[in-house]
Amino acid sequence: MNLNWDFITQSTLLVDKSKALRNIHRMKEKAKQAHVQLRPHFKTHQSSLIGSWFGPPNETPIAVSSLSMAEYFALSGWTDIHLAIPFNPREMKHINDLASYTTLSLTIEHPSQLPILKSIEHPFHAFVEVDTGYQRTGIDAEQVQQIQILLAELHAIPQVQSVGLMLHNGLTYQAQGKAEIVAAHQASSQALTALLEKLNWPAKLKIATGDTPACSIVDAFPSATEIRPGNYVFYDLQQKLIGACDWDDIAAAVACPVIAIYPERSEVVVHTGAVHLSKDYADTPQGRSYGQVMRRTEQGWGQPIEGGFISRLSQEHGVVTLPAHELEQIKRGDLLVVVPAHSCLTMAAMQDFIWFESP
Amino acid sequence: MNLNWDFITQSTLLVDKSKALRNIHRMKEKAKQAHVQLRPHFKTHQSSLIGSWFGPPNETPIAVSSLSMAEYFALSGWTDIHLAIPFNPREMKHINDLASYTTLSLTIEHPSQLPILKSIEHPFHAFVEVDTGYQRTGIDAEQVQQIQILLAELHAIPQVQSVGLMLHNGLTYQAQGKAEIVAAHQASSQALTALLEKLNWPAKLKIATGDTPACSIVDAFPSATEIRPGNYVFYDLQQKLIGACDWDDIAAAVACPVIAIYPERSEVVVHTGAVHLSKDYADTPQGRSYGQVMRRTEQGWGQPIEGGFISRLSQEHGVVTLPAHELEQIKRGDLLVVVPAHSCLTMAAMQDFIWFESP
Repeated sequence: MNLNWDFITQSTLLVDKSKALRNIHRMKEKAKQAHVQLRPHFKTHQSSLIGSWFGPPNETPIAVSSLSMAEYFALSGWTDIHLAIPFNPREMKHINDLASYTTLSLTIEHPSQLPILKSIEHPFHAFVEVDTGYQRTGIDAEQVQQIQILLAELHAIPQVQSVGLMLHNGLTYQAQGKAEIVAAHQASSQALTALLEKLNWPAKLKIATGDTPACSIVDAFPSATEIRPGNYVFYDLQQKLIGACDWDDIAAAVACPVIAIYPERSEVVVHTGAVHLSKDYADTPQGRSYGQVMRRTEQGWGQPIEGGFISRLSQEHGVVTLPAHELEQIKRGDLLVVVPAHSCLTMAAMQDFIWFESP
Repeated sequence: MNLNWDFITQSTLLVDKSKALRNIHRMKEKAKQAHVQLRPHFKTHQSSLIGSWFGPPNETPIAVSSLSMAEYFALSGWTDIHLAIPFNPREMKHINDLASYTTLSLTIEHPSQLPILKSIEHPFHAFVEVDTGYQRTGIDAEQVQQIQILLAELHAIPQVQSVGLMLHNGLTYQAQGKAEIVAAHQASSQALTALLEKLNWPAKLKIATGDTPACSIVDAFPSATEIRPGNYVFYDLQQKLIGACDWDDIAAAVACPVIAIYPERSEVVVHTGAVHLSKDYADTPQGRSYGQVMRRTEQGWGQPIEGGFISRLSQEHGVVTLPAHELEQIKRGDLLVVVPAHSCLTMAAMQDFIWFESP
């Protein structure tokens, strides 16, 4: 598939399949070497087409973060799905249905929800979410007794096929550089190992972990049996800045039509706003950035244009700061290629994309 | 229409039609008193149903900020549409088509785009965008000569039915309190008046202005012939904090299912994330807020719950800070009602809503 720039009229999400496949392959190899199962988190792309790049659906266990994503991928052929967020009690009718036609894993973080889980009429797998310090969802990993009891209660439910622990160490997203990613990962792994040593559990537990920064940087996942990174298929400006990827790894960018130029302000304006990129940002040495301008190539994009970034963003306008020598080459109607701050939210905002293969 | 809380299973955008109608009516009355035409900006809701609450489509001139919105509303019966953003040269084929079946107003901010406008084969109206200090798009209002020349060149195009000036004074969105809104509005009005005094233009120019904060607070629009507020149909937390509305005026909120509770952190977690609310926020005395928790009523919501707000937001999780006495009454599966920081972006993110009439 070739990218035909001439036919692009409005803000368009571009996916470089060559780079995405490289990212997918690299993580697969890493999981194999580390003897953990890879369960890619499909919330990043929410697309059955991109999902198919990971391998045959019925051979690819996946994670999702909403019932509607689970249903979408189940209808598209994926069979082993982990709803990797504490289940929503209001959705039990549909969750029960979903369990009838998929290998479904559910997430629980409190014993008050056991009666609801017991009402599910089909076999399913259960993960207790533990929290090693991120403080979003999950039982504090030091609450060994609570975790032990919940595991035992789940194990006693006839429909529960296996029990395990899951965690999301979002602290790696706050790292600056590889060393901090490694440190955040080690702290989480130690908390997990300490928990496992104290737990009195006869059989081998499934242990699901994995965030894109750590999975991209470290090679070992102590105690884990599976990892669940998602963003790595695309990466983005945030991942680049925290040290999880290189510019060459980033597989998603937005083509942004220039609608105004202000040389006196060193700014151009693109018809690309928060409805396209999302309002997520990265704090850079140059200031807040909603996206990094890349050098356009015939088929895709190359390196970043230094000093070129979206510095302000409203619903439909993006204000791009650009150095004078770059700005003077731009005309209204040109397309700038911008790597978003956060590719998952850009994908969710744009809902559609075109893909191509770079040389 | 009644709101049936029991049937809500996932994050759902609720629109209180009674409040929206009151907001719509109030702005209509204000425009009438101020002798300006009201041209509501429909980017806020992007819905033909909500659009119909403003009056008969063929009697309601509207503004939009993208070609796709213009096409959507044209196909739904609106006939007088201002594409209130510098036009995108890559979209001229469709813009030309649109001009064939609507009363279309276009926005231009540079003479280099005149040849493209001349290629339009159907009658249209032209607005020169001027900038009174916001520095997003538009010719600096002090560049009288440039504005004069562009107006004259537009006037000379046979297809151009009328010419005018438009401006968006986004500085009012940075105000804190009514006095600052008024001051920002006056500064912009003075720049506009100064420009008009220097312009040598024989006929009466159309002057389109209007942002929700100023249109909500001031009663006079010196020099303007039309105003174009959008957000006022819903308002939101940002508008409340800058002093543009009261809590009772806010007509949009999100029902958020509680999926986890952490009394020791004074936090609950809702399955409502950036894909629902958008990542926009408001800085409050209590910290960054992605949304304000409101007291739920039988049909809608009442006053804000003090100290209850979404303090962290990831793709699908919202972390809600709540005072202990509020938190202890909440169970997993309950619905919290949250007024978003920015209703336009929440509407764009959710794409769908349910409406009801509050008593």
